[in-house]
Amino acid sequence: AVSTTSGGGSEAFRQAVVNTLERRLFYIPSFKIYRGVAGLYDYGPPGCAVKSNVLAFWRQHFVLEEGMLEVDCPCVTPEVVLKASGHVDKFTDLMVKDEKTGTCYRADHLLKDHCKEKLEKDLTLPAEKAAEMKHVLAVLDDLSSEELGAKIKEYGITAPDTKNPLSDPYPFNLMFQTSIGPSGLLPGYMRPETAQGIFVNFKDLYYYNGNKLPFAAAQIGQAFRNEISPRQGLLRVREFTLAEIEHFVDPEDKAHPKFSDVASLEFLMFPREAQLGGEQARKIILGEAVSKGTVNNETLGYFIGRVYLFLAHLGIDKDRLRFRQHLPNEMAHYAADCWDAEIECSYGWIECVGIADRSAYDLRAHTDKSGVQLVAHEKFSEPREVEKLVITPSKKDLGLAFKASQKMVTEALEAMTEKEALDMKAALESKGEAEFQVCTLGKTVAINKKMVSISMVKKKEHQRVFTPSVIEPSFGIGRIIYCLFEHSFYTRPSKAEDEQLNVFRFPPLVAPIKCTVFPLVKIPKFEDVAKQIAKSLTAAGISHIIDITGTSIGKRYARTDEIGVPFAVTVDSTSTVTIHGQSTWADVMWRFPTHSVTANDDAADQN
Amino acid sequence: AVSTTSGGGSEAFRQAVVNTLERRLFYIPSFKIYRGVAGLYDYGPPGCAVKSNVLAFWRQHFVLEEGMLEVDCPCVTPEVVLKASGHVDKFTDLMVKDEKTGTCYRADHLLKDHCKEKLEKDLTLPAEKAAEMKHVLAVLDDLSSEELGAKIKEYGITAPDTKNPLSDPYPFNLMFQTSIGPSGLLPGYMRPETAQGIFVNFKDLYYYNGNKLPFAAAQIGQAFRNEISPRQGLLRVREFTLAEIEHFVDPEDKAHPKFSDVASLEFLMFPREAQLGGEQARKIILGEAVSKGTVNNETLGYFIGRVYLFLAHLGIDKDRLRFRQHLPNEMAHYAADCWDAEIECSYGWIECVGIADRSAYDLRAHTDKSGVQLVAHEKFSEPREVEKLVITPSKKDLGLAFKASQKMVTEALEAMTEKEALDMKAALESKGEAEFQVCTLGKTVAINKKMVSISMVKKKEHQRVFTPSVIEPSFGIGRIIYCLFEHSFYTRPSKAEDEQLNVFRFPPLVAPIKCTVFPLVKIPKFEDVAKQIAKSLTAAGISHIIDITGTSIGKRYARTDEIGVPFAVTVDSTSTVTIHGQSTWADVMWRFPTHSVTANDDAADQN
Repeated sequence: AVSTTSGGGSEAFRQAVVNTLERRLFYIPSFKIYRGVAGLYDYGPPGCAVKSNVLAFWRQHFVLEEGMLEVDCPCVTPEVVLKASGHVDKFTDLMVKDEKTGTCYRADHLLKDHCKEKLEKDLTLPAEKAAEMKHVLAVLDDLSSEELGAKIKEYGITAPDTKNPLSDPYPFNLMFQTSIGPSGLLPGYMRPETAQGIFVNFKDLYYYNGNKLPFAAAQIGQAFRNEISPRQGLLRVREFTLAEIEHFVDPEDKAHPKFSDVASLEFLMFPREAQLGGEQARKIILGEAVSKGTVNNETLGYFIGRVYLFLAHLGIDKDRLRFRQHLPNEMAHYAADCWDAEIECSYGWIECVGIADRSAYDLRAHTDKSGVQLVAHEKFSEPREVEKLVITPSKKDLGLAFKASQKMVTEALEAMTEKEALDMKAALESKGEAEFQVCTLGKTVAINKKMVSISMVKKKEHQRVFTPSVIEPSFGIGRIIYCLFEHSFYTRPSKAEDEQLNVFRFPPLVAPIKCTVFPLVKIPKFEDVAKQIAKSLTAAGISHIIDITGTSIGKRYARTDEIGVPFAVTVDSTSTVTIHGQSTWADVMWRFPTHSVTANDDAADQN
Repeated sequence: AVSTTSGGGSEAFRQAVVNTLERRLFYIPSFKIYRGVAGLYDYGPPGCAVKSNVLAFWRQHFVLEEGMLEVDCPCVTPEVVLKASGHVDKFTDLMVKDEKTGTCYRADHLLKDHCKEKLEKDLTLPAEKAAEMKHVLAVLDDLSSEELGAKIKEYGITAPDTKNPLSDPYPFNLMFQTSIGPSGLLPGYMRPETAQGIFVNFKDLYYYNGNKLPFAAAQIGQAFRNEISPRQGLLRVREFTLAEIEHFVDPEDKAHPKFSDVASLEFLMFPREAQLGGEQARKIILGEAVSKGTVNNETLGYFIGRVYLFLAHLGIDKDRLRFRQHLPNEMAHYAADCWDAEIECSYGWIECVGIADRSAYDLRAHTDKSGVQLVAHEKFSEPREVEKLVITPSKKDLGLAFKASQKMVTEALEAMTEKEALDMKAALESKGEAEFQVCTLGKTVAINKKMVSISMVKKKEHQRVFTPSVIEPSFGIGRIIYCLFEHSFYTRPSKAEDEQLNVFRFPPLVAPIKCTVFPLVKIPKFEDVAKQIAKSLTAAGISHIIDITGTSIGKRYARTDEIGVPFAVTVDSTSTVTIHGQSTWADVMWRFPTHSVTANDDAADQN
């Protein structure tokens, strides 16, 4: 009796979903009575319940199952932390301003809209020009500020609302800025991600974990991005909930003990080569993707598998879920590999989870800025003998030879790589002298045997000190939920076939309300039983609604279908109920002991 | 075997608690590697788990049990909303500045510290001066900016760090300010409370509830206060989690159908009269407090009772929990009544939950500012005949008589109360003329029969339209958790009696980790069983740690006691375990079927 409505086109489908979501208060545009603020949404009662359920399951699936260390850090963050992480300098979008009104636009959006419209509507567009615009769309994310500005000028793009000329593009930092304390001297930002709170705590968390690797820390919390002009409704918002995992691992050993648990999973993957070769995403067995090196390492692969299981469990359609590998130009220079879990919805394929091997970048950045060593130690069971290069410049002899330049020559000698030092050692031994380029002086100097001693010394080391790599799965909870809504939405004809009814069919895990309870007929005896059952459900922690309005059964189902209630309990008599399941549409008659319908009895447990 | 350590003085006790909390990472000063930021703390792994548990119980106890509508609104809030609520103008503390260095201090803190120190340490202080300073301390919260400034001058108080002179006190707004969007033209703030998000949604929520009162909405989320100089460690912070309930009710009927469920509860209450009479808080039966009018109404009383049950269930010591009524000078002018749940800890009695009847203030404020009517309707079963006063000024006659002042006279006439209007009607009928005071003109004018017609008209009304009252229980989650930590903390001597061990004894509901699993002796067969049990616990969603380090049983208990693990499972053989409960200190031997230690079997359920 259920039919999907993907026939009406994705715009119409989206409108039907969003209408239902807003009418049933899954979402409310924030501060609506004040005409709202772009990019801010409230979760109303059913939306809020779905979010709670998703987060509770996330905690079970990741934090509890993997023994992760969950932390909870503030949103207000002092500038120094985000300076170290690179956000103060680089977390920007390019913006252009209407030169007369001052209205701001994202430069890439304007260029994208212009090209798309030309390609779709301008029938006179020469083939050459069309090809060029297609190319612009393909490389849009890689264009520099200058290139974007040049294209905007070349195409004569003006402000969409006024047709006024536009300024050159310039970077706008996407963090909400504020000031901490009353002095105005301590700038701060609302965090753009939760990860930094974990990185700065690495030392304590490593200690908490018994100074052992690997371990993972996790955080769920609000993050903020002051978007220039939010679009795509619920997908691009200015405040959102992130759930992030930072899994710290020895860079020399990224094997994962539980990889075999996920190795046989098979799902849509879209490796770099397939993208560059113009192919489609295809089903790949995860174990093979790792063994063939498509996925960089087992730990990264393990998390890809766990993310897949998480999303599938929530009710994301497996055929509209793919893992897409970042292309080289998308990835930060320090990243070893990166895969996005993308979910297809009416807006296209949307990045909902990013799973990146960020190598040692973040811990090194905070070590440099704070001066606190964020490192791990591997104690050797027995001390190991290692050869170490020792360079000892003789300041006295260097001073006699280079006078005021002595310091720069000394520093340059100390900074030699192992190869440079060994080459110099060989030259000094064979010729007694060596040419040496001192960059800071901008010239080559002659070094003799007296000036420096170079040797390889054998040392015993008791441990290895290193900066761990971090593998980061980062979940945009709001995006996942929105895609879940689209994937759970159907319409079905009403009984009289005179209208289409909206249905959300959620897995019980996700459903905002698990159960409706209503008497078959509106008589006090049945109502009492319904109330007793409701009480039992409450005590068992099962969300439900009790409907004693006496409207028709069909109408009641329609009403609860619209908010995705998976079960209904109909009180047929004082001793039996019928349990109706949304997903099977089968009814089960169930006799319960009237004398024991209390808070703690079986009635509650078995529902 | 357990002894409390309240002997060492509250400072020493607090130090012991805080040391344990920080060493075991319940809390971490945020951004510690950058020397931190005053008033910002992270929850580390066990603290974060406690917080999750408290919030989950809050949802069960309030949202689910009472069928509340939970919402989730953004922290970023546009100025207009907080202008309407009064926060932009009035959410301030008085601040003084060191006139040379610019360092800021809270004016009342400096005055308080000065008086306290004088009273404690200055043995030469004349009795008269001492009495005056005691009075200053008593009325500290009521002092105006001018009075505070005068006292600071009079006592010669200088900047604590530099002894430099101080500025006059001036108000500092405690909200973190930011700017929404790229234009810089839309000022916003990080919300200082979650309540406003609910008020602005009243209309939608009322509709969601079938246009029926009463109903409650709830919200859990971050709130922000940019404190001038945070003190009291974990109790006064700049970012914190609030859980707030807004219960909307007909102002003419504040009865509560479930009040009888809590009426017989008896606990410490501290009514206004007892405070003013210099008495102590005393045990009062809630039902009597409401029937005698000590508590303003049943709904307020119901929430006081539910808050009591909530806190007691969490493990707050009932003897260190009291409900203190606000004194008239503490309460906003619009509030009908207000009670704080105060918990005693080493800092004294701390306000942890505020339960206020805020009457119609908030909804009216947003109605006025937004122009959207935030009202409820009571449909009458039959239309009711009501008498309504109708005042119709004759603008023409008023204009002839008062020329340019016509508008002000007209408005004053229309604004008359029923009594004033009826008095004027009587005067006009008997004498043909009446004296009338027009405030806006600052004088009395003569009104005659032609200028205004006043009559009582009978009208049929089909419904009553009114602004609901709101009863608001507001929970400072961080403060509750901190007090809970103090109330759960003990020390006990080690077995050798050579040291004091730290113990948190949490109710299982709150405990961050529910269970430790360890083999009695370190042999592979027992370790395998321990791992099987751990797997079952994970599948059942029960947090636990598995300890196969092989250290002594006593040391393992000490380690888990310090993070308040309530249960331990010791693997004695391949077929039996001993379950050890922290609160009873009794051991239970329990035989389990080895063949069925799997994810779904009894082993998990019964733990």
